[in-house]
Amino acid sequence: MIRLGIVGYGNLGKGAVKAIEQNQDMDLVGIFTRRDPEEVVAEGIDVYSVDRVEEFIDKIDVMLLCGGSATDLPEQGPKFASLFNTVDSYDNHEDIPRYHDEMNGVAEKNDNLCAISIGWDPGVFSMNRMFSMSILPGGSNHTFWGPGVSQGHSDAVRRIEGVSDAVQYTIPIEEYVEKVRAGERIDLPSHDRHRRVCYVVTEEDADTGRIEREIKNMPNYFEKYSTDVNFISEGEMKDDHSGMPHGGFVIRIGNTGTDGDNKHVYELRLALDSNPEFTASVLVAYARAVHRLSCEGNKGAVTVFDVPLSYLSPKSGSELIAEML
Amino acid sequence: MIRLGIVGYGNLGKGAVKAIEQNQDMDLVGIFTRRDPEEVVAEGIDVYSVDRVEEFIDKIDVMLLCGGSATDLPEQGPKFASLFNTVDSYDNHEDIPRYHDEMNGVAEKNDNLCAISIGWDPGVFSMNRMFSMSILPGGSNHTFWGPGVSQGHSDAVRRIEGVSDAVQYTIPIEEYVEKVRAGERIDLPSHDRHRRVCYVVTEEDADTGRIEREIKNMPNYFEKYSTDVNFISEGEMKDDHSGMPHGGFVIRIGNTGTDGDNKHVYELRLALDSNPEFTASVLVAYARAVHRLSCEGNKGAVTVFDVPLSYLSPKSGSELIAEML
Repeated sequence: MIRLGIVGYGNLGKGAVKAIEQNQDMDLVGIFTRRDPEEVVAEGIDVYSVDRVEEFIDKIDVMLLCGGSATDLPEQGPKFASLFNTVDSYDNHEDIPRYHDEMNGVAEKNDNLCAISIGWDPGVFSMNRMFSMSILPGGSNHTFWGPGVSQGHSDAVRRIEGVSDAVQYTIPIEEYVEKVRAGERIDLPSHDRHRRVCYVVTEEDADTGRIEREIKNMPNYFEKYSTDVNFISEGEMKDDHSGMPHGGFVIRIGNTGTDGDNKHVYELRLALDSNPEFTASVLVAYARAVHRLSCEGNKGAVTVFDVPLSYLSPKSGSELIAEML
Repeated sequence: MIRLGIVGYGNLGKGAVKAIEQNQDMDLVGIFTRRDPEEVVAEGIDVYSVDRVEEFIDKIDVMLLCGGSATDLPEQGPKFASLFNTVDSYDNHEDIPRYHDEMNGVAEKNDNLCAISIGWDPGVFSMNRMFSMSILPGGSNHTFWGPGVSQGHSDAVRRIEGVSDAVQYTIPIEEYVEKVRAGERIDLPSHDRHRRVCYVVTEEDADTGRIEREIKNMPNYFEKYSTDVNFISEGEMKDDHSGMPHGGFVIRIGNTGTDGDNKHVYELRLALDSNPEFTASVLVAYARAVHRLSCEGNKGAVTVFDVPLSYLSPKSGSELIAEML
């Protein structure tokens, strides 16, 4: 059995609990929280203060870091990488190279293995961008996200002073989607192919003008996008925005042949009822890989590009060949 | 530069020549043929008799085995695995475990590394079946092929006595495609979800009744399928069936959450103008990986499940993280 811990019990942590239950070779040792453990409701699961993690160094094989990318993971990542093998979903794309180097340094020094930026983007989408480009070097990649709720962006909005709750929808601009699916190469950056729509509940007397400006000007997350901000009531939030669907697709249009006259469309599409439950499911599969690779003596930071797919499956190599190849 | 050789100059070998040209870090040393090298037209490329391969042991890093799966690869695979690192597209699914073990034994013994069953199915589709099942353990996989020409099946028909040319189309049965895309789990074997249509040119005075029976009863390839066989003229073959399109999709319908009430659709779709050119492009990317893994001391037989994706790309690890993650 692979012994797992969960750090952080928000949407992603809750998804991780459910994902672990679906895998016969895994045990959940406990949830670690910065809150008072008595206040965390998690039926049948041990909940500990995050201050007690060092007691679990020999009792947990892989720690799933389920905090947000805006402020949690930049701090939690290196801290836990010094104590445990970890898997996280760090999704601040522009900062990933720095984060990778920091995690790699800490993990190597402490003989741990840390899979970073796991999930669907970064993650499944990255794999398909990179793989399709490798097999079809002549061509162009096109990634579209949504329509759906982005956890990372919603989280970033929630951290703004005066915001009590927020949901952010990423919406591909339909005109460009249709062109790409028809095989046309669209050379536009992400922020011109998508728009962002936020629904925000504020604390009493909050300065909505300032909040709207802070959202729209947030570097990396919103700055370059066309963003709508809508202020709504707590009731409207509960009634209309409690689901967390997401999806999108990665397309590579590749050309081969004498004059590049043969066209190939490679498309990976996800349509997800629950973004956090899907992301958590990916984290859990990578926890299996991290455990195995760590047992083989690997250390440092790895991404989806580094892990052979066979390590993700509970099936043996010969089962995979016989049943899945 | 990675030095490549090509064994066999049919459709796949021709596709490999074009694919190598698209990769800046690769050199094509030559084509090896069982025919008279003088008779092989390949402008600007050295063509050698396959009997001379041993002269090239120190001149070629990876040999691309571009023969067919019905009779070429079962013989060529182990022979070349004793002399070179290789990549092949062995696609006789039911025989792959045996072929893997044989190739693994020969390659290990001779310090070579051989990537077997590379292409899109087995290959890209296998990766997506296996990966999606690992991240979504609760769910079901559905693979559809076509409409398109299967190289392996066409090849198998061409080898029947009295057949001078043949093309086989695999066609998904539309009723089931629609159900799966709508999220319904269809529990039917491949041969009930697809039909096969063959167009066959025969030699003069050939016994078409016998040929039709041999096709329809061919184990693994046609036996269990609903198969139509049409005898046509050489002219009709040239006019109507000279393209080699293919495609299809792998879908996993996965469930997560307390009662599995959240549904996730994971879909990988390929729409290929030229099956052999696409397959060859995949072989060539895996040749890069085989060369690198071999340089690191790896040997034996590997599949798409074993090769970390980063080894397929000419980009460095830090470039991949910065540009593709």
